[in-house]
Amino acid sequence: MKLNQFGRVTVSFDQQCQELTAIGFNVTLDQPLAAVASAAYAKLFPEALSNTAKAQALAAVAATAKLDLGAWLATKPTTISREIFYAVALQLLGFEPLTDYPLDDALGFMAKTQLPVVDDAIESAADFYAALYLLLCTRTKHLVNYLDDLANRGFYQDFQAGKAKPEYLFFNGKAQAVFDARHLRREVVWVESDLDTDEDGKRDMLEVTIFRPAATDHGVKMPVLFTANPYFHGTNDVDWITHKPDPTLAVKTHSHTRADVTAKVPAPTDLPHQPVNGESTTAEVYGDENGIYMFNDFMLPRGFVTVYSGGVGTRGSDGVRSTGGQSETDSAVAVIEWLTGQRKAFTNRTDGIEIKAWWSNGKVAMTGKSYLGTLSIAAATSGVAGLKTVISESAISSWYDYYRENGLVVAPGGFQGEDADVLAVDTFSRQKQTGDYLKIKPTWDRALAQITADQDRQTGDYSAWWDERNYRNHLQDIRCDVVIEHGLNDWNVKPANAIRFWNGLRDLPINKKLFLHQGQHTYLDNIRSLDFADQLNLWLSYELLGVDNNAPATLPNVTVQDNVTPETWHTYEDFGAPASDHEVKPLNLAADFKAPRASFADNATSIFTAAHSNSDEFEADIIKPDSRYNDARLWLGLPAFGTAVTLEGVPHLKLRLWIDQPTAILSVRLVDVGDALRFTPVASAVDPAGWQLGYDFKTASILEFKPEKQPSASKLVSFGHVNVQNQHNAYENVPVVPGQPFTVEFDLQPTHLNLPASRHLALIIHGADMAQTQRTEAVVNFHVDLAQSELLLPLRTK
Amino acid sequence: MKLNQFGRVTVSFDQQCQELTAIGFNVTLDQPLAAVASAAYAKLFPEALSNTAKAQALAAVAATAKLDLGAWLATKPTTISREIFYAVALQLLGFEPLTDYPLDDALGFMAKTQLPVVDDAIESAADFYAALYLLLCTRTKHLVNYLDDLANRGFYQDFQAGKAKPEYLFFNGKAQAVFDARHLRREVVWVESDLDTDEDGKRDMLEVTIFRPAATDHGVKMPVLFTANPYFHGTNDVDWITHKPDPTLAVKTHSHTRADVTAKVPAPTDLPHQPVNGESTTAEVYGDENGIYMFNDFMLPRGFVTVYSGGVGTRGSDGVRSTGGQSETDSAVAVIEWLTGQRKAFTNRTDGIEIKAWWSNGKVAMTGKSYLGTLSIAAATSGVAGLKTVISESAISSWYDYYRENGLVVAPGGFQGEDADVLAVDTFSRQKQTGDYLKIKPTWDRALAQITADQDRQTGDYSAWWDERNYRNHLQDIRCDVVIEHGLNDWNVKPANAIRFWNGLRDLPINKKLFLHQGQHTYLDNIRSLDFADQLNLWLSYELLGVDNNAPATLPNVTVQDNVTPETWHTYEDFGAPASDHEVKPLNLAADFKAPRASFADNATSIFTAAHSNSDEFEADIIKPDSRYNDARLWLGLPAFGTAVTLEGVPHLKLRLWIDQPTAILSVRLVDVGDALRFTPVASAVDPAGWQLGYDFKTASILEFKPEKQPSASKLVSFGHVNVQNQHNAYENVPVVPGQPFTVEFDLQPTHLNLPASRHLALIIHGADMAQTQRTEAVVNFHVDLAQSELLLPLRTK
Repeated sequence: MKLNQFGRVTVSFDQQCQELTAIGFNVTLDQPLAAVASAAYAKLFPEALSNTAKAQALAAVAATAKLDLGAWLATKPTTISREIFYAVALQLLGFEPLTDYPLDDALGFMAKTQLPVVDDAIESAADFYAALYLLLCTRTKHLVNYLDDLANRGFYQDFQAGKAKPEYLFFNGKAQAVFDARHLRREVVWVESDLDTDEDGKRDMLEVTIFRPAATDHGVKMPVLFTANPYFHGTNDVDWITHKPDPTLAVKTHSHTRADVTAKVPAPTDLPHQPVNGESTTAEVYGDENGIYMFNDFMLPRGFVTVYSGGVGTRGSDGVRSTGGQSETDSAVAVIEWLTGQRKAFTNRTDGIEIKAWWSNGKVAMTGKSYLGTLSIAAATSGVAGLKTVISESAISSWYDYYRENGLVVAPGGFQGEDADVLAVDTFSRQKQTGDYLKIKPTWDRALAQITADQDRQTGDYSAWWDERNYRNHLQDIRCDVVIEHGLNDWNVKPANAIRFWNGLRDLPINKKLFLHQGQHTYLDNIRSLDFADQLNLWLSYELLGVDNNAPATLPNVTVQDNVTPETWHTYEDFGAPASDHEVKPLNLAADFKAPRASFADNATSIFTAAHSNSDEFEADIIKPDSRYNDARLWLGLPAFGTAVTLEGVPHLKLRLWIDQPTAILSVRLVDVGDALRFTPVASAVDPAGWQLGYDFKTASILEFKPEKQPSASKLVSFGHVNVQNQHNAYENVPVVPGQPFTVEFDLQPTHLNLPASRHLALIIHGADMAQTQRTEAVVNFHVDLAQSELLLPLRTK
Repeated sequence: MKLNQFGRVTVSFDQQCQELTAIGFNVTLDQPLAAVASAAYAKLFPEALSNTAKAQALAAVAATAKLDLGAWLATKPTTISREIFYAVALQLLGFEPLTDYPLDDALGFMAKTQLPVVDDAIESAADFYAALYLLLCTRTKHLVNYLDDLANRGFYQDFQAGKAKPEYLFFNGKAQAVFDARHLRREVVWVESDLDTDEDGKRDMLEVTIFRPAATDHGVKMPVLFTANPYFHGTNDVDWITHKPDPTLAVKTHSHTRADVTAKVPAPTDLPHQPVNGESTTAEVYGDENGIYMFNDFMLPRGFVTVYSGGVGTRGSDGVRSTGGQSETDSAVAVIEWLTGQRKAFTNRTDGIEIKAWWSNGKVAMTGKSYLGTLSIAAATSGVAGLKTVISESAISSWYDYYRENGLVVAPGGFQGEDADVLAVDTFSRQKQTGDYLKIKPTWDRALAQITADQDRQTGDYSAWWDERNYRNHLQDIRCDVVIEHGLNDWNVKPANAIRFWNGLRDLPINKKLFLHQGQHTYLDNIRSLDFADQLNLWLSYELLGVDNNAPATLPNVTVQDNVTPETWHTYEDFGAPASDHEVKPLNLAADFKAPRASFADNATSIFTAAHSNSDEFEADIIKPDSRYNDARLWLGLPAFGTAVTLEGVPHLKLRLWIDQPTAILSVRLVDVGDALRFTPVASAVDPAGWQLGYDFKTASILEFKPEKQPSASKLVSFGHVNVQNQHNAYENVPVVPGQPFTVEFDLQPTHLNLPASRHLALIIHGADMAQTQRTEAVVNFHVDLAQSELLLPLRTK
């Protein structure tokens, strides 16, 4: 087990003493060590409410093989060896001598687990407080830091007692769980937007659900974690609208220019506002929907209000869905504007009783994964005031990169046949309120038909419609700091979404952080080997509560999970940059690769159909060294480098080829080859309810990425798909003449991969991708001019 | 979807009106229907806290394809057709017209889903209240009844306001969630037992954790759900002590008599009591361990304190583990005695400050699954006063039936190599407090060695040690009512534990109920197709709160899930009885079965080893019609009955055979044969956090048993294992002479199985069972005299 930690701040000893005093330790540097230690240890059992109970707790901890902690303290030691201090410390952190570590080698276990230790034996009160401070900032077996663990057990339960107004508390730069999260105020209000997407001549009212600690009723203003969540009120059946992969691929007849495919700015609406007939500080509707995001819940007792809103077309709101269109950005921004005093909300949809976010400190962060994180990016590009940071996890930065690729319809991995219209239906939870739905059914039917037409499954080309959904067009408008988290094995929202976003942020005068893990489409908050939630606490305390904790400099710019050594996280200045740390290795497909042949006939669809296969099986089969698709692909083996190398960045492929048809799907996969126990892309539960989110509050699972139980022969590293008529970009079409050679050039998905010396790469060139592209039935013969083709492989050199 | 319901009570219309009034409806029978309906519907949206918010909610429900509920009520209808009433009702219950049912055929859906409806159109206020009462007792999409769903959304949030003392509320005989479960009092106390299992000359103190609603602080006395839970403070690594299945089977040399194997009553201890130095009403230790059982949590807001205790040898308690021995029974009973005022507890282990369960109403039920349910049975057999009922789920009624069978070591399914000593180590969580553990290590090492010796893996015979762990010896002492729940596919704690217990209860003057489902080792509380938690609420309201709700007569005696039709539950008067509803069909193995041969050589171990197989694979392989074990077994096919039959009860086998060795393991399996989509024994999540346990409180998953996705060829129905030297019982040994025929007779596991006409049974006779018995290496030749062997098959005839 390794417990990496990057969110711990180094503070002066004076500061340590002040912080220890603030959390209730009676710091007295002139007392004997034994007295200081006895008093301090007794405080570390918040469950024990009497002296006898504390003595009982001390007796339950072993200090040595012979003495329990109470008995050992009774010997009035004048020195505490590191061995004894950490033998005790590990038990306090939740580890067990009989199973986790040998009682007489605590230091060995501390080192192996990467837990911090003081350098010398503890010989004075000052030494003890320094060691105690460090220990309180040390990670436990239960995901959280030791002080958080103490808080979960009641350490802070009397903190607010006797205070005129509830107060925040910070320790090591992070907000402490000093607010009771059990009796939350759960409220629903309606924000008046500038939209009228359901075309009823009235501004769309957007339902917003608020969870706020009761302390806000007693004068404390809190910042907000806002999650724009189209799934908040549930989803709908989409079987009926999910597309069947098409058996044909259209020959394109209309090329486009950049101007053609540039989104038009929609005309601003100018509808009358709801008249204000009064004002209230209390909501009229209780929020019965449960919060859905464990990290938000983790921050609630730390003094962060959490807010959810589904946006236009979701249950309780007006309007219709647009799958990432401007109206969804505007929905999220409208909520932020209300939270920051720039827009009106009402207690219901009709009476005009205004309600202010009077409990808000005016600072907002956005959180959430996937579609939720996507809307964080969208809102960030608005530059809206008060949005201080977004934490966008596994998010889409351009919807074209989610549903299309280089002039092809390409489904998100695992969701063959999904498209923008399918997701629109999925999230149109307004239909769940049938009384409301029946009134706008004709409008919604029209809007949905328009999405189906605009998404254009015929050509797969980029268009003004997709351009509206490319948030990277507006990165220069971002005013807030950005945290990006993404899985290097996320073939649903593919890594290009994160890396293209990251690259676009590089030169902006904002703080930005990037986290890449070895999972697929998942959260990072509860992965045991990284202190992600704690880092975010540091970040949000800085961003939203103005704590001077040096968070931007403390947190690494880029944190990447290793793919070979378990529980190992690397930190870097940047990703794929700077050039001095990287090289691009050009690899000629003839000279550098071993290719048995240069031609293949793509009959993958007929093989797939005959085998009654499915998308998951195809994904597995196509990358096997020996596969039922052997004849329908080129397997180009790259001899082992002879040394371990680290790929980092965007592989780029230039292919010279000819085919015997006027169009074709071309797919390529870069794979890591060689028997090995690679990590499973789904993290396993190591403690199913082990993460406690606050005192007497919710729990969540603790997970870790584990090695496979059986070795695998190969693993997907990166891939790319292209319509051969889109040789330059996703909107210009170049006719292909059967038998005539042409060149096509495109990026693969970004990667970061440690390739051990014992393994090698292979490049697989094939045609239709059963899991992601259309399933074309015409057999296309491909002939690759290997000598005129090359792969540009990005490597990290230091 | 079918939502079976057995826990609804029929009450008079007067009673209905009184109950409706008690929960806040203004029942006025002389008002016009439209006025009554409008007022009542408005109350069904507890989230809506203003009239406008209520109007908004009514507008979200469709009454007809044209009118929402608000608009339709505004037409002042003088009749409400059943079609409209249930079109609306289904939306209120959480169903959606667009996906779940057609708005114009609500009655069709009600019938299909087995939801109750009134017989006639609603034409008066009285009609409306009767329909409303029934609707409030109707199951929703969210597992719970509609009134529970309303409570989860805040219906009762003001119920206690203004009351001098918090009050209970009952509706349709069941306790309502009128107590706030968010701020629980979480306390730890120590009960003084009569035990001294760690032999330190002092009575073992037993740690008890209490979760009680804050209302108990304001004068209301509550009953207790007590879960004796050895896993409460976690488990230990047991890899080191898990046994390897033995390659040899001992030839037994010592036969035993019934007297030999009768447990001796342990001498009562007579140690001094802890002196009482004072008394307190408040605990000194906060309970930081989280409750673990969703059903207990479900009852908390309904006014039931929940209590957990691990018993001797668990963390925080004195003593050592005994794996179901008398000391564990006594531990559980001691806690009940404290809860009912018959025994002392203290605020800590040393100071002698007594603390009473002053908040307890003196009535206790025990709950819990597996080991937890086992200790419920154990405690019930003590006849302790105040224990009113036990709800024992998937529980062991005799430990011999868990770890042994007919003179053989037989592991629980899925846990090859586990035994009583392994479980003792697993649950000895006292070792987690190393300071405490080091002091009693020698005592524990001795106690553990004694368990290893006493369990006797050499012979597998029944002994006085096992007899102490056979709770069925003391059924006549049971004074409380009993609910048994068990999975018909539970091969961990096998169904014989439940059915032998049930049979032993038959003639006792207590109420008893039996639930059998198609799962394995699992809870039934959150299975969607049955209202199990609601039935238990009715039961516990009767048992512990004295509600006159007719629970014993209302709940079926025996409820069995069908194995063919999904979501179908049958109810019966008894199981395997009365004789008038059953027949035992004798089936001669020669005349009635088709057997290709009568001999086989058991070389299963070598086949298993060569295939690098594991227990799960063996369990799957051995019942396949064509298997790698073909030659190591007899497959006796029973021709189809020609009609559907229902097996119910205990199949009994009499075999005449000879073998070529002095001893052998004989295993038999009864299987259901024929391609079919049978249910998976693990229920699938149909709504991962869909079961809300109270207002603003925890959630749990809703599950259902689903059919397999691919047809299976056969499925295990029942099995049995016997040591051929144990021809009469589990303690007398009969020498076997190689080549000489002998008769062995034994019961298989009880079953309830609907066998469709298209399927048939087969009996598999084989030797060592790789998954459960020792893995003997000597090849034994078996020769069965089929003509002198018979299977007695128990059938239900009506």
